[in-house]
Amino acid sequence: MIEDKNTARTSLSDLGEFGLIDHLTKDFEVKHTSTLKGIGDDAAVVHFDNECVVTTDLLVEGVHFDLAYVPLKHLGYKSVMVNLSDVYAMNATPKQITVSIAVSNRFPLEALEDLYAGIRAAAKIYNIDVIGGDTTSSQKGLLISITALGHVKKEDIVYRSGAKDNDLIVLSGDIGAAYLGLQVLERENQVFKVNPQSQPDLSTYSYIIERQLKPEARRDIPVLLKKLEVKPTSMIDVSDGLSSEILHLCKHSKVGATIYEEKIPLDPTVISTCEEFNMDSTTIALNGGEDYELLFTVSQDDYSKIKANPSITIIGHINQEKEGVHLITRGNTKVAITAQGWNSLNENKEN
Amino acid sequence: MIEDKNTARTSLSDLGEFGLIDHLTKDFEVKHTSTLKGIGDDAAVVHFDNECVVTTDLLVEGVHFDLAYVPLKHLGYKSVMVNLSDVYAMNATPKQITVSIAVSNRFPLEALEDLYAGIRAAAKIYNIDVIGGDTTSSQKGLLISITALGHVKKEDIVYRSGAKDNDLIVLSGDIGAAYLGLQVLERENQVFKVNPQSQPDLSTYSYIIERQLKPEARRDIPVLLKKLEVKPTSMIDVSDGLSSEILHLCKHSKVGATIYEEKIPLDPTVISTCEEFNMDSTTIALNGGEDYELLFTVSQDDYSKIKANPSITIIGHINQEKEGVHLITRGNTKVAITAQGWNSLNENKEN
Repeated sequence: MIEDKNTARTSLSDLGEFGLIDHLTKDFEVKHTSTLKGIGDDAAVVHFDNECVVTTDLLVEGVHFDLAYVPLKHLGYKSVMVNLSDVYAMNATPKQITVSIAVSNRFPLEALEDLYAGIRAAAKIYNIDVIGGDTTSSQKGLLISITALGHVKKEDIVYRSGAKDNDLIVLSGDIGAAYLGLQVLERENQVFKVNPQSQPDLSTYSYIIERQLKPEARRDIPVLLKKLEVKPTSMIDVSDGLSSEILHLCKHSKVGATIYEEKIPLDPTVISTCEEFNMDSTTIALNGGEDYELLFTVSQDDYSKIKANPSITIIGHINQEKEGVHLITRGNTKVAITAQGWNSLNENKEN
Repeated sequence: MIEDKNTARTSLSDLGEFGLIDHLTKDFEVKHTSTLKGIGDDAAVVHFDNECVVTTDLLVEGVHFDLAYVPLKHLGYKSVMVNLSDVYAMNATPKQITVSIAVSNRFPLEALEDLYAGIRAAAKIYNIDVIGGDTTSSQKGLLISITALGHVKKEDIVYRSGAKDNDLIVLSGDIGAAYLGLQVLERENQVFKVNPQSQPDLSTYSYIIERQLKPEARRDIPVLLKKLEVKPTSMIDVSDGLSSEILHLCKHSKVGATIYEEKIPLDPTVISTCEEFNMDSTTIALNGGEDYELLFTVSQDDYSKIKANPSITIIGHINQEKEGVHLITRGNTKVAITAQGWNSLNENKEN
């Protein structure tokens, strides 16, 4: 049978709910022995030798993503990453996910196949079993709800609440790129609306666009820390912006923090694109969001183990709660950090 | 502070995402020692002494419910029941759920408080910890995604796949009422649109309306079966209609089935309302859906243990796969059972 995915448009209602679920999930195979039962019963069954970590995220079209510039395959991939990132932030290993979607009838089957191709790719690369979910119609647009289950020994769990005075504040990778990638994509989408013939050269932005469209959860960081024999005292993933996440850590740990502007890790593309957009790169780094890096604290005693590691950067230190949460700028000014993280409830009005 | 819930309309965007989550979940307390960490970190942490059962369901406004006649408190309650029912169908005990909602800004905070009051009531009555979730805006309407975790010993798990030739087919409670309740509510809603002054007397329909608006998951059935020392060979919950569920059991167990029309348990209100609506009660029982009863099979050897129990009814028996799946009518006619269960993908077009 010759398939041309570009032209085929199979109506979802032709398949029916069970036919659709069967079709979309037929390629999912169970990889983990801990998955006793995957898709196909009233519920899945999972065995835990240790503790079970549970997290869930909703992604809504028009709120979290715009299909004008987000390919469905990338969206599927990213929707898995968003959840895995939360599991890694507990220092756990994700092994199972459920995937539920609500979708309007304007989507042909082929669009959902693309979405599931991205989910399948993420599951393969990150060694995840897709063990269940729900598929239904929506009144408008596409909505994806994923729940991830992680496995972790009790003594290895890292909460947001363990940071102590004098601990070092450490960040994986670099930040701000995902937000800037979104700015570039939105700008090109506006250009495209005016001139559909335009063929933009986005190669100079490839890093920041990839950070927006196809983020990777930092599964390497828990592995690295274990190898270095460092257990973080607290950890959180950077989904809403560095300032918002630092405030979460401090609130839960009942501490304050000082971070240094000059230490915040930025990719060169972030700096050059900020200049082009006339934006302040530190503001973007603090408030941008969607980086899916890990922010964690470690004891000063572990400094020698983590210093000069290219995967992580020490950006500041914890202080007492009464001292507050501050940024020390390059000009040595002390600025209070406030949450400017992204708030989906503010920005969208119903059509 | 004096609160008048009927007139207060607090905008969701005034609270922001984190403020909203904090506000809605502040009353949720952790009851189970297996909940090591509830709401408030990147993920929840749950301990399993035995196996973990996982199920998830999406409920979408305009597809699964119509807020014209479904009170939000009932909706919250029902959205939990739908998931617990799947856990009981595995012969497991639900103990934890996550609750995610996507909601448009047209909903005031007070509406979500009603929704969460229903969720809280369900969690209290069924002894469930709400351990996490996500709250975001939607482009249109309300969407609820719940994931439930159940606890069960490996040897107690009941799958859909274990039914054997000659097993008895057993149903808890009675069926068809939830669908008929919906018909009454929809009719009254039409009347109300024409004449908003009408004050319908729905007292004669109270049973079927309650079955639609506030179903209860059959947590008593696994307890009863344990007490009777009966382990079902297969089990499923009746969410899409008896015919659809029997076909699922038979497909997974690679068997056929025979059920008897005269044995199908119907409430007297179902029979009288069917007459009023000029509907066939057997058709409603087979295809209605949303009953959340448990359908299971037991060995003939267990007949003496389950016979004459008022909570359950033997409605037929399993036969070999090649004999097919049939209903024997009151007139002794053999009719093949086909799936007519509810299909959300067929019935809704995007606005």
